[in-house]
Amino acid sequence: MVKYFVEKAKIKNWDKEDILLWVFEKEVNYSCTFTLNDVKAHSIIFSQEIYKNREPIFALFANSGNANCLNGKAGYKALEDIEKFLQEKFKTKKRILFAQTGVIGEFFEKNKVLSALKDIKLKPLESKEDLKVCARAIMTTDSFEKYEYVEDGDLKIMAIAKGAGMIAPNMATMLCFVYTNASFSKEELDILLRYSVEKSFNRISVDGDMSTNDCVFLFSEKDGIKVDIFKFRNLLEKVLKNLALKIVEDGEGATKVMHIIVKGAKSKSKALKIAQRIGNSLLVKTAIFGCDPNWGRIVAAAGSVQTGIDANKCLLFIGPYLLFSNGEKTNYDEAKVIDYMKKNKIIKIVLDLNEGNSYEEFFASDISYDYIKINAEYRT
Amino acid sequence: MVKYFVEKAKIKNWDKEDILLWVFEKEVNYSCTFTLNDVKAHSIIFSQEIYKNREPIFALFANSGNANCLNGKAGYKALEDIEKFLQEKFKTKKRILFAQTGVIGEFFEKNKVLSALKDIKLKPLESKEDLKVCARAIMTTDSFEKYEYVEDGDLKIMAIAKGAGMIAPNMATMLCFVYTNASFSKEELDILLRYSVEKSFNRISVDGDMSTNDCVFLFSEKDGIKVDIFKFRNLLEKVLKNLALKIVEDGEGATKVMHIIVKGAKSKSKALKIAQRIGNSLLVKTAIFGCDPNWGRIVAAAGSVQTGIDANKCLLFIGPYLLFSNGEKTNYDEAKVIDYMKKNKIIKIVLDLNEGNSYEEFFASDISYDYIKINAEYRT
Repeated sequence: MVKYFVEKAKIKNWDKEDILLWVFEKEVNYSCTFTLNDVKAHSIIFSQEIYKNREPIFALFANSGNANCLNGKAGYKALEDIEKFLQEKFKTKKRILFAQTGVIGEFFEKNKVLSALKDIKLKPLESKEDLKVCARAIMTTDSFEKYEYVEDGDLKIMAIAKGAGMIAPNMATMLCFVYTNASFSKEELDILLRYSVEKSFNRISVDGDMSTNDCVFLFSEKDGIKVDIFKFRNLLEKVLKNLALKIVEDGEGATKVMHIIVKGAKSKSKALKIAQRIGNSLLVKTAIFGCDPNWGRIVAAAGSVQTGIDANKCLLFIGPYLLFSNGEKTNYDEAKVIDYMKKNKIIKIVLDLNEGNSYEEFFASDISYDYIKINAEYRT
Repeated sequence: MVKYFVEKAKIKNWDKEDILLWVFEKEVNYSCTFTLNDVKAHSIIFSQEIYKNREPIFALFANSGNANCLNGKAGYKALEDIEKFLQEKFKTKKRILFAQTGVIGEFFEKNKVLSALKDIKLKPLESKEDLKVCARAIMTTDSFEKYEYVEDGDLKIMAIAKGAGMIAPNMATMLCFVYTNASFSKEELDILLRYSVEKSFNRISVDGDMSTNDCVFLFSEKDGIKVDIFKFRNLLEKVLKNLALKIVEDGEGATKVMHIIVKGAKSKSKALKIAQRIGNSLLVKTAIFGCDPNWGRIVAAAGSVQTGIDANKCLLFIGPYLLFSNGEKTNYDEAKVIDYMKKNKIIKIVLDLNEGNSYEEFFASDISYDYIKINAEYRT
């Protein structure tokens, strides 16, 4: 059982819940994944230490509106102070995992948080509505709440995520917290989480920028119900994939999602590299935004990875239409392809390298005027 | 001596010179560099073969408006036909180097070119005005002609370039042709060109997309004047750097140029990787466009390369202002930094890693609404 508390701490000048506390009423095992950026937010460094030593935890604290990154010693000290405050309040020596998101390098006013935590009213986290409230508290430029609720017999998986920009593998700029009443060992949780993150959050990109604050936490009740690990893995993968897709759909200013499939490759790593490059190419993103079936830019982006592809062997599809084969344009009907691109939110792009049997897929947003607007004016 | 001819072949539906012919009246040695993209335009494949075999050439043909890339056998055949036509016209068996730029995968109407070449009126390439005329013929989305004219005693270097989008190392989407009356061997030209391209065109980025058509050609008169090779190298480097900077300034929709310097690095390759990433980060580009001294995004981009930087040791300057040191924000005057960013077209960004003695620099454009507009509507 988890209980939660959200509050408007006014970390930014906004009228929105911006702090989230989860308190674990039952003992939990947990696993974490963190950003690979050399530059890590204070919350990442703090949580990584706890995770490394596998210390017992009793709560998760998250806030939006300030990334608390590159804030010197004060940034780290703020988290120690909040932890100490909550440990005293809950009369425990167990630790707290932290996750934060917002602008980098702005002074984090811990006193606003401490004030907001003076009067904690915990509610049980039970319904989809509860999840939505939690998801809202961690939103920054997100335009909607991202959460997933799975019930399968006795099994429950509840997950929330945030993310809209600074999204790139590995570990997009995103936070994601998953709670389940299923019981797994720490080692099992590590395997489950890494496997599922690789299939979901590491297969998406909005802008190709990697954050300093990314983290995914998976909490499991120590004395929870027993569930087949493969069944759970499949459910978890689905939950995280759904959340990842929501992040791409909500990409800052995004109007379309590219579902990029690279198949017929000699290796999975080659297929993935090419799919990522296509998804991160500004020229491809702008063409998709313009509903322009500019297949030349897609093939050029694939070639720019320099993995040794032979364009003469490649096939390129947009939706059901074959646009390129035998080293040249097919006789496709441009109006039909444009119509497909205009009518669909998810644009399927399939590049068949015709050289092997490996396959990878990747999801990326397009780029619009609004991306520029949001990010040129973000701090103002 | 070079003679030139430009004409409006109407390769696209525009009223602009779009073909350029240089005819070498004196025998030349030459060197070339080409795109590293796996996907290469037909002109690249054609010219690469000539260069590989070091065949004697008598002319250069370039066109804008069509990249003639991924056009199947017809794309290559078109170049053979144009070459044959010109060989007959000029009564020679020597070869022609080709360079083309424009949209990928659109049928290249060689007949338009052959018609435009029916009545060739050659003029000597002598003045800056001549160079400007040549530079105009290879423009696509460029907003101004890019050329450099150097006279130093008897020595002459004349160069033109084009490029505005699809610009990324190595070899931005750009064409550049250099002619000099100084005499060097083929081997010397190879060294001179590679050295200078590395310092110029491989140090710029507009959008991080690598083209299928990039090439730089250097022509030198076989019986030209004798010039000290180091003196020439310095001049050539300066010429190509000036042209490279013009390409970044003219980046599609660009309002600012970032001059990124990474110093105090353990190695030059590390410094360059970090400088490139900063220059290609969409979040940095949008911040620069918004004149927002968002140093956090710059340090985060540097860290995302995962070369192992220690943010606590880094210093970050924008213009003359130190914004970040000792792992946190300095007491800089934000209004002054914004003022610097608003008043200057070239924004200097210096990141000192404080871990070694290596140094690299890189030039990149910002990204604006107009980049999206130009590239979402390019083919229409």
